[in-house]
Amino acid sequence: MWPDRRLIDLLGTEFPIVQAPMAGAMDQELAIAAAKAGALGSLPCAMLSADKARDQVNIFRQQVSAPVSMNFFAHTPTALDPAQEAAWRTRLAPYYKEQGLDPAMPLPSAARAPFDAAMCEVVETLKPEIVSFHFGLPDDKLLARVKAAGCIVIASATIVKEAVWLEERGVDAIIAQGAEAGGHRSMFLTDDIATQPGTFALVPQMVDAVRVPVIAAGGIADGRGIAAAFALGAAGVPGIAGQPDHSQESRAGSGRHDRHHQRDDGRAARGIVNRAMRELGPVTADTPGFPHASAAFGPLKAAAEKTGSADFTNLWAGQSVALTHEMPATELTQALAGAALRRLSQMAG
Amino acid sequence: MWPDRRLIDLLGTEFPIVQAPMAGAMDQELAIAAAKAGALGSLPCAMLSADKARDQVNIFRQQVSAPVSMNFFAHTPTALDPAQEAAWRTRLAPYYKEQGLDPAMPLPSAARAPFDAAMCEVVETLKPEIVSFHFGLPDDKLLARVKAAGCIVIASATIVKEAVWLEERGVDAIIAQGAEAGGHRSMFLTDDIATQPGTFALVPQMVDAVRVPVIAAGGIADGRGIAAAFALGAAGVPGIAGQPDHSQESRAGSGRHDRHHQRDDGRAARGIVNRAMRELGPVTADTPGFPHASAAFGPLKAAAEKTGSADFTNLWAGQSVALTHEMPATELTQALAGAALRRLSQMAG
Repeated sequence: MWPDRRLIDLLGTEFPIVQAPMAGAMDQELAIAAAKAGALGSLPCAMLSADKARDQVNIFRQQVSAPVSMNFFAHTPTALDPAQEAAWRTRLAPYYKEQGLDPAMPLPSAARAPFDAAMCEVVETLKPEIVSFHFGLPDDKLLARVKAAGCIVIASATIVKEAVWLEERGVDAIIAQGAEAGGHRSMFLTDDIATQPGTFALVPQMVDAVRVPVIAAGGIADGRGIAAAFALGAAGVPGIAGQPDHSQESRAGSGRHDRHHQRDDGRAARGIVNRAMRELGPVTADTPGFPHASAAFGPLKAAAEKTGSADFTNLWAGQSVALTHEMPATELTQALAGAALRRLSQMAG
Repeated sequence: MWPDRRLIDLLGTEFPIVQAPMAGAMDQELAIAAAKAGALGSLPCAMLSADKARDQVNIFRQQVSAPVSMNFFAHTPTALDPAQEAAWRTRLAPYYKEQGLDPAMPLPSAARAPFDAAMCEVVETLKPEIVSFHFGLPDDKLLARVKAAGCIVIASATIVKEAVWLEERGVDAIIAQGAEAGGHRSMFLTDDIATQPGTFALVPQMVDAVRVPVIAAGGIADGRGIAAAFALGAAGVPGIAGQPDHSQESRAGSGRHDRHHQRDDGRAARGIVNRAMRELGPVTADTPGFPHASAAFGPLKAAAEKTGSADFTNLWAGQSVALTHEMPATELTQALAGAALRRLSQMAG
């Protein structure tokens, strides 16, 4: 028995587990596998065209009868600063040469668009049960259309103030993203990463500040973590699904994976420290704004990966990555739910 | 019923709660009050003379029949660098003038000595049931004498590697100090604060890596936090006892309390951001080494406090300080234990 059923009741899932959408690192197959196991399946749409997003939802609907979440970014787009861009390309030029690439090669624009009217039409047509946003919310009119389509809206907050802001705008559940979490910090009312509390401090303070269910994220990797999240007052947790090679790299690595350096797309994110993070260091004022920095990274990543190198690959991972196990998503979801319920039942002493 | 009794059995306390020693901010009265309520009472001895430490233990013994812990620092002393010292005094000179003090006034040396032979003799004479160390351990000979005196040894670790190092040297229980924790980080095998995981990630990884009981610290402020710590595999938690004015400052403040700036004694610590933290910023390479930076801070702190200002006072506090309530230590300990047991019993669903 789950000690808090509010998220289960809201989402209509078997388990209070939300499979985490990872833009650019997964497609509908992972969402389908998680949904079949009883979690909320999430389709990351931030790097997809409207057509492609529609295709993925349709495939999901054909293969599983369960609620689906479409996940979007809601960042405020920034104009590309030519001077920053030039400085960034100069900085990356030695790596281009090393990989046999022309440092002046033409680049496609970075493919991480915020939720817009075209995507809103897709949502209105497909009516996914859930729509979730990272980096804040779209403007009031778009958000009203999403809600009018009958979708439950979930969004992420890294500080209590962001959670209150989200609730005031009608969000139905909030992801409390603690500092341990892998990937991009969802911060949108601040860009000071030092203000983001750890999960242990963030969750109870957020639970006290809002009435909607809180989904705890950050450092949760097994049944112990899920049970602890519920003890803190959370009503749900993310499913853990990383790219398979991450935990191996971390285990074999120097133990420096628990950092939040990031330069390759211009926003702070946590990942395993690879050569790019080590040599380029954290985001600074002269890094092109999100997502522009990623454009010049694309060719480097592709060239290095061809030789089996992850030197320029985003190895997004949280501080508990060493606790994770490689396992198919269906088995993993069921194993996590089972382990959490066992752990919860042990807690009564 | 506590789901893990290893720490209770090891320490001989009623509750698996260790009252946190705060050097310079408390005396034996708080330890006595916590011990009377069933927690482990801890006497911070790092800023005391051997005679004073002996007095405090004797008073404790007269007033309560319960185990007592003597807490010491075990940092490696560094020589005072005259150039750093001069630069530091120049940096602080404007504040001295503002407070009506002579920037060149003579200063006492900083009173934060590591555990030494004189203190070891006190321990051998008094035989406290528990001796705890911050910033690592004393050298092997001193540690062997402490253990030969029959004392249980507890020490703090901020990363898994430090926990393994402590266990290899015979420590009987380890405090897992997550990044949320207030006060000084106990890091001793690294000085890179970005490598310190949050409590949520640290505790289960440490529990998996060592056999001794782990006491979770960082972000724990109420029954929910204690229950969550046990869910993660901890066998104990710290009691929460801050200086009374902190939580008020934090609640009234700018919400920037959850930072880890610190300059005033040369080591990283987390506290409420006051004027000194804001204007002097984090520890840098030209800050005098711990604890030398604190010497020049003493007169500033004293002068400002006389006018009711905490501008130069260490307001050590963790990221959950806003969850704390002012309450006498005996009532607080009993309230925390009761709330934790209720929360644990709710977890079975």
